[in-house]
Amino acid sequence: MYPKKVAQDTAKILQSYLTFQAVRTIIDQLSETNPTEAIWLSQYSSTHKVQDSDTYLEGLMLDRKELVLRIMTVRQHLAEQVLEFIPEMVRTGIEQENLQYRRQVLERLTQSQLSNSTSNSEENHSQE
Amino acid sequence: MYPKKVAQDTAKILQSYLTFQAVRTIIDQLSETNPTEAIWLSQYSSTHKVQDSDTYLEGLMLDRKELVLRIMTVRQHLAEQVLEFIPEMVRTGIEQENLQYRRQVLERLTQSQLSNSTSNSEENHSQE
Repeated sequence: MYPKKVAQDTAKILQSYLTFQAVRTIIDQLSETNPTEAIWLSQYSSTHKVQDSDTYLEGLMLDRKELVLRIMTVRQHLAEQVLEFIPEMVRTGIEQENLQYRRQVLERLTQSQLSNSTSNSEENHSQE
Repeated sequence: MYPKKVAQDTAKILQSYLTFQAVRTIIDQLSETNPTEAIWLSQYSSTHKVQDSDTYLEGLMLDRKELVLRIMTVRQHLAEQVLEFIPEMVRTGIEQENLQYRRQVLERLTQSQLSNSTSNSEENHSQE
């Protein structure tokens, strides 16, 4: 494992995801204040992947500089509001899921051992 | 904006991404210790999306319980190693990108104002 590389990749994914959430928020806001622009951004976002955030923002720079600035502002705002809670939320989520799957594995192993021992004891009975 | 919902969705995306990184790590490890199993997991992962982590892990529970436990362990280990650094890395990444795009917008605005004023002054000269 290369934790540093994993951390860098994870941070990149997260930054990209916050860009996506910022765009979604702005489309929501625009659909009330400027429906034409909301449709434009929505269509642009369906032909340009936000995940590929460099290309997405570069393209937007040509046509809609003011939207780039707005995405920057909303994304930073979102980041400030959510980032500090993320590590604890993910840690808890992983612990809960681990517990759930470990219990499932244990239950299935116990069941298969029980059914083995039952069939063994049945065999023993039939042999008596 | 609904920061709580955004935080929950972001944590889910991150948990899913760490599952993906855990699977990748395990395929790497297996390709040295058990190539047949590495190929099996690699093929399973190409037909089942890790992003849809519930379905992915449920399917794996039927065939390879021990792999589910291994993914749980590796993912938790990765989470412990990287999570604490993520908020700061994302914050820095966003600040740097914001700075870069704000500078670009400013440069383009200045250029277009400069070229406007140049063409204006040329017009004035030609009118003289």
